[in-house]
Amino acid sequence: MSANQPVTACVIIIGNEVLSGRTADVNLAYLGKGLNDLGIRLMEARVVRDDENAIIDAVNTCRGAFDYVFTTGGIGPTHDDITSASIAKAFGVRLERNADAMAVLGQQYTPEEFNEARRKMADVPEGVTLLDNPVSKAPGFQIANVFVLPGVPVIMRAMFEGFRHRLVGGEPWRSRSVVAFTTEGSVASALATVQERHPAVEIGSYPFLRSGRLGVNLVLRAADSAALDAATDAVKALVTDMGVETIEEEETPAFRSSPA
Amino acid sequence: MSANQPVTACVIIIGNEVLSGRTADVNLAYLGKGLNDLGIRLMEARVVRDDENAIIDAVNTCRGAFDYVFTTGGIGPTHDDITSASIAKAFGVRLERNADAMAVLGQQYTPEEFNEARRKMADVPEGVTLLDNPVSKAPGFQIANVFVLPGVPVIMRAMFEGFRHRLVGGEPWRSRSVVAFTTEGSVASALATVQERHPAVEIGSYPFLRSGRLGVNLVLRAADSAALDAATDAVKALVTDMGVETIEEEETPAFRSSPA
Repeated sequence: MSANQPVTACVIIIGNEVLSGRTADVNLAYLGKGLNDLGIRLMEARVVRDDENAIIDAVNTCRGAFDYVFTTGGIGPTHDDITSASIAKAFGVRLERNADAMAVLGQQYTPEEFNEARRKMADVPEGVTLLDNPVSKAPGFQIANVFVLPGVPVIMRAMFEGFRHRLVGGEPWRSRSVVAFTTEGSVASALATVQERHPAVEIGSYPFLRSGRLGVNLVLRAADSAALDAATDAVKALVTDMGVETIEEEETPAFRSSPA
Repeated sequence: MSANQPVTACVIIIGNEVLSGRTADVNLAYLGKGLNDLGIRLMEARVVRDDENAIIDAVNTCRGAFDYVFTTGGIGPTHDDITSASIAKAFGVRLERNADAMAVLGQQYTPEEFNEARRKMADVPEGVTLLDNPVSKAPGFQIANVFVLPGVPVIMRAMFEGFRHRLVGGEPWRSRSVVAFTTEGSVASALATVQERHPAVEIGSYPFLRSGRLGVNLVLRAADSAALDAATDAVKALVTDMGVETIEEEETPAFRSSPA
């Protein structure tokens, strides 16, 4: 993949509980940071219901549009866990009881515990690569460019850390952040000029209220370190010229994917 | 709209900062709960980049597929705020400097402060209905079935509370929750039977680890109170039959949208 062609990804979050507001998703931010560290740009995310057609549509659209797709949720033992069966249909392949998954799960449970519901967790599309689950054993899987992960954050993270070395990214984006105690409206015009002069750098402006003080977090991101440094200097200069207090935060690479 | 035809919605979260993991979105859960209270089912959410084509594609797909669409983010004064212009293009209408928005913003700033960047916040697609912003004044807008809101949570919430009485929902879904100190694999088979016998009730199973104890939160949701009660009784009975401790939580309506 060329330097001009970024490696891209999409996250599909599967679960009625996220859409009803019952559960606040935390996996998206983790995957966004982790992929960024690998030089993979998360381009889009979707949250879909526990509905076969919704899952099939999202998976088939996104696996064609992006280099990598990561799904979270819906691979447990209960009736509302329909992700594996839906993904088999999305790929037009059979769902099969995977012998390796059965072996892993069989070691986890006594014969009485290893009931049909738990065996269902070994049902995956044929031809997949299993993804190791060091926490609760029930594996996820990879099929083509789609990685199928659980929704429970501690398990999702442990699984991602286990296979991330296999993902092939481009040049990781680095970031710098300049905090200015001013308002977006005051800085916008000069900031737009800096953005025009530094097209290889993505400049974002995020207002905040911190301990009663209004401020703007100006975040610069780029693959090229020299371009990033030049744009950061220009942003710091424009804020200093306004007579405004600034703080530079977050050295590169800004986003660590390791669990805190 | 008939009782069999639920009123549906989609949320489109606009912002590179959410995809990079820099900012954890909290608006989705708020809107999901608030819409649920109004009898509107949030069917899908998308997170897209600050990219004109990405915004246009998401808005045009979702406004055709769902009764309501809510966008968050990208309506501030800086160069990366491109939501209003992108939505004008999605609808094929002109972006215009709205006189009413100019009047509101003009009262907020001194003549020197009211620079071109701040005036840009009055640029909206022609023919929209402005949405009042009681916090920082810069309005959002409604165009057809699309509501365009800011990303800053405190402002987004205040605006939503201001227009929610105008949204037309169906029968609100009510929910009950049974906490069982057992595992999903133990309860799955009996739970699937309850789900089959109570098709009007949506039953979700969410495992948790709380103070070192494994448990499952069994969440039942339905528009019909009698059906909900019957299914909840069946779930409680199945868990009690297993000899497992249960707690019933969250009386109906389970989800409040008012700010805590």
